[in-house]
Amino acid sequence: MKHISASDIEKMEKIFRLNLINSCTGFKSANLIATKSKSGNPNVAVFSSVTHMGSNPAMLGFVTRPLSVSRNTYKNIKETSYFTVNHIHEKMIEQAHQTAAKYDEDISEFNKTGLTEEYLGDFHAPYVKQSEIRLGCRYLNEYEIKENDTLLVVAAIEHIYFDEGIQMPDGWLRLDDAGTVSINGLDGYSLPSLLDRFHYARPNQEVKSFFTREADL
Amino acid sequence: MKHISASDIEKMEKIFRLNLINSCTGFKSANLIATKSKSGNPNVAVFSSVTHMGSNPAMLGFVTRPLSVSRNTYKNIKETSYFTVNHIHEKMIEQAHQTAAKYDEDISEFNKTGLTEEYLGDFHAPYVKQSEIRLGCRYLNEYEIKENDTLLVVAAIEHIYFDEGIQMPDGWLRLDDAGTVSINGLDGYSLPSLLDRFHYARPNQEVKSFFTREADL
Repeated sequence: MKHISASDIEKMEKIFRLNLINSCTGFKSANLIATKSKSGNPNVAVFSSVTHMGSNPAMLGFVTRPLSVSRNTYKNIKETSYFTVNHIHEKMIEQAHQTAAKYDEDISEFNKTGLTEEYLGDFHAPYVKQSEIRLGCRYLNEYEIKENDTLLVVAAIEHIYFDEGIQMPDGWLRLDDAGTVSINGLDGYSLPSLLDRFHYARPNQEVKSFFTREADL
Repeated sequence: MKHISASDIEKMEKIFRLNLINSCTGFKSANLIATKSKSGNPNVAVFSSVTHMGSNPAMLGFVTRPLSVSRNTYKNIKETSYFTVNHIHEKMIEQAHQTAAKYDEDISEFNKTGLTEEYLGDFHAPYVKQSEIRLGCRYLNEYEIKENDTLLVVAAIEHIYFDEGIQMPDGWLRLDDAGTVSINGLDGYSLPSLLDRFHYARPNQEVKSFFTREADL
């Protein structure tokens, strides 16, 4: 096995380090965050840091740099409190990746990428029409990560839209039925397929699959 | 499309809500965090919240509840500052899931699940021998998420171990070559395969794949 130490990481060429460190923590979630400024400019950008924060209350978080390419996303959320999280699927990985280009602030990535904005109910922020799982979120708080000047934005999940066919009777959404992708590093898009789903683990009991049929017993 | 509102979420039965909210943010990273207490008890537990926090300095974060099943992980990290992050692969999803069972504090999940502890260099915390991508991490800080009493633990990545064959010349680790899995909700284990990898996006330029061969041009 190759071993890379802290001092190797420090001395690395910048892009090499970006690629290695972004891929070494495992697969990441693949989402488009969409917002609309107070003055009406929509914005959509790819994020790989959206993370489950808790179920009750339903919350998620994501990491951003206030002055990065995603600055419009952050500015619009601070102005309006609202944003949407939209899954990226196999059919739209090129369009999703293109949202990372540094467009001027008054240019909508929706126009430039072929992604379609859709407004649902009276929610301020646009959803991405091509997305099959969409969340309407409300800003709650932010935590400044002082070790590297990033921000963890924490939000409430207030609306969930999805095709009923991907939900199992116990509430679980089967994401490979929606064709949701995951991100490998900064720029790799992968399609997961379900291997197995297991029941709650208990000491001294074998792990039990959800898919073991009665007939097998 | 089915629409679920904030008040629907609040009124949901607890397990149904856990399944829905844990799966609606997309695929999650699949890692085993391993620690050893000051008195020498090893511990290993599955985590789906490990997230890239930055490349320079190389940092990751994960979310935990101080009093959850993962309390031993947190306690050991606070006592010793060190922990490892070990990718979960297709061949070990049952063992990884079993680490979530509520064993007594003095019982090592390594003994109970068949996962093997391995010590590398003079690093205090054990690595998981079955894991093909392993990170040695040092605690830096924690942020209390006051909206739901969870903690974001932030750590420096100080060691990286992997098989050289999965690294591309630009530093990127191809995770599907390692058979790394991703997690769907609380208990679904999925195997991603790479669809494509794209070059840096620029305004008014088409998205370019890394895999377009010269011969195709």
